[in-house]
Amino acid sequence: MESRTEISSLGEFGLIEHLTKNIEFKNASTLLGVGDDGAVIDHFGRQTVFSTDLLIEGIHFDLSYTPLKHLGYKSIVVNLSDIYAMNAVPTQILLNIGFSNRFSVESLDEFYAGVYAACNEYNVDLVGGDTSSSQKGFIVSVTAIGEVAPDSFVKRNTAKPNDLICVSGELGSAFLGLTLLEREKRIFEETGAQPDLEGQAHIVGRLLKPEARKDIIEYFSESGIIPTSMIDVSDGLSSDILHICKQSKTGCVLYEDKFPFNDEAKEFAYKLQLDPTACALSGGEDYELLFTVAQNDFEKIKSNPAISIIGYMTDEAEGKHLITRGGNKHELIAQGWNHAIK
Amino acid sequence: MESRTEISSLGEFGLIEHLTKNIEFKNASTLLGVGDDGAVIDHFGRQTVFSTDLLIEGIHFDLSYTPLKHLGYKSIVVNLSDIYAMNAVPTQILLNIGFSNRFSVESLDEFYAGVYAACNEYNVDLVGGDTSSSQKGFIVSVTAIGEVAPDSFVKRNTAKPNDLICVSGELGSAFLGLTLLEREKRIFEETGAQPDLEGQAHIVGRLLKPEARKDIIEYFSESGIIPTSMIDVSDGLSSDILHICKQSKTGCVLYEDKFPFNDEAKEFAYKLQLDPTACALSGGEDYELLFTVAQNDFEKIKSNPAISIIGYMTDEAEGKHLITRGGNKHELIAQGWNHAIK
Repeated sequence: MESRTEISSLGEFGLIEHLTKNIEFKNASTLLGVGDDGAVIDHFGRQTVFSTDLLIEGIHFDLSYTPLKHLGYKSIVVNLSDIYAMNAVPTQILLNIGFSNRFSVESLDEFYAGVYAACNEYNVDLVGGDTSSSQKGFIVSVTAIGEVAPDSFVKRNTAKPNDLICVSGELGSAFLGLTLLEREKRIFEETGAQPDLEGQAHIVGRLLKPEARKDIIEYFSESGIIPTSMIDVSDGLSSDILHICKQSKTGCVLYEDKFPFNDEAKEFAYKLQLDPTACALSGGEDYELLFTVAQNDFEKIKSNPAISIIGYMTDEAEGKHLITRGGNKHELIAQGWNHAIK
Repeated sequence: MESRTEISSLGEFGLIEHLTKNIEFKNASTLLGVGDDGAVIDHFGRQTVFSTDLLIEGIHFDLSYTPLKHLGYKSIVVNLSDIYAMNAVPTQILLNIGFSNRFSVESLDEFYAGVYAACNEYNVDLVGGDTSSSQKGFIVSVTAIGEVAPDSFVKRNTAKPNDLICVSGELGSAFLGLTLLEREKRIFEETGAQPDLEGQAHIVGRLLKPEARKDIIEYFSESGIIPTSMIDVSDGLSSDILHICKQSKTGCVLYEDKFPFNDEAKEFAYKLQLDPTACALSGGEDYELLFTVAQNDFEKIKSNPAISIIGYMTDEAEGKHLITRGGNKHELIAQGWNHAIK
């Protein structure tokens, strides 16, 4: 039987000590971490980027199919993704967690194992945080800190008409993973049948253990690209490109036949009679980078197989549209797309 | 009747826009705030200090006697207090909130009115955050960011034997405010009688609208004092001085007759047959600064009426003790003090 240590046996300060005792700093800018009123960071000559997120059990994640270790990993990665989406390099994180008395020290250890795995993978230091009891469920709040060379950060409101719209990796797979897990959970609850995830490791992994696109930011730096705007795809391609259009005061045209899909994911979508394009536009949680570049960066972008060019920006007056494989033009809306225009 | 706008009528992005539309930056270091993946801060030549806290309804606050505006104010202030406790000056905050569907847009406006009041009072910029629904109650997570001149930050683990132990302001009042409000709540629930807070504005204010000791940090800077260690009094004097002792590997002696009390608070304590000293040692939530200075800073410290010298640090082997008014010596423990030793 697994051992269960009550959190109350450690006390609040004992718990923080227990959870953070093996931290070793990876960044020279980290001067002081957990164990004081604050952490101290030295950022001489760089600019500092911050991002923060709140994740709540039952709203953002379901522990019936999310291992705590994966949740720890993902909680960090989704925040690092925001830092990369600023064209910055993450360096430190702060982590607050709240938990009801159904959680043991062992379960928090699992969660932190995931947190530390992400810190190692992305070379960031955990420098502070708070632990607290909650009335209900598990609550995670992460603040990520990153560095960027002076005035190289990339915003959402600086795209220009004729810029190319690009996206990294693949779209829609995490949503398909979620659909599969929700379906298997329902079947389990109704019939007691064990989940059948056979052959679906890819889409389940995309949901439960996403990665942030560190490699794309490194590629930008190596090849001298500064995107004209950037966002990470967390709410679905449609919602996220509309953020860029709204803030940049532009329109856009997306081409369905340019959307990047994973073959296994596409096959699973058809099996469920879901449209992969709909999954890409409305699904969310892909944590890919969606960005625009000037046309003269075309050759540089084209030579990276991890990047797809999926459209271009237009004047605001031209609206926001999707051109389907069949050549039809649809208006993009936050939830996907609207009735055919032509 | 008060108007009630459902949060769902704004949508998540509409809500963030609504809550943050009037932000004006006060710090030159704030380059980019709410509305992108991250905030950007320029900290050339300074060091950056971070602190973060999670506050959960039913655990950290009771909305039956805490107005949301006060909660907003306090959520910010308690984090700024941690930044001051590092001898730093707060400059920016990030704020995450989670809320169940019992909250309306108007109630979030109330909360944010308190947040912005604190930002104005302490000259900090709100630069980012996340809003989310919650399954139960109100959840607040604040990350505060501050600046400090290179290597002037003050830690907990650097006190030395013979250093003077000092505390700002007064102790125990917030705990008495809490005791009063809890009592009146119980009476209201049992009898329906309206709360009687007559003449107790001071202690209630200390609980519901605490202030952080910005003035003390300014005084340090003006008079060239760098404390040898510092912490803010959030868990009670006893617990907090023991943190310094443990981390600095020292002992300490505190003198009961030097503890600073407010007269009104002391009177109320006696009325309830509570010992003001016990309230100071175990009460918590005072958000005063507890710090140690070298003996040769004695004259400078003495000339500030907002600072009390309440004891001195000793070798670790001498233990941690309280000398009572009657001359008895008690061992300090986290919850207050232990049986008489002599």
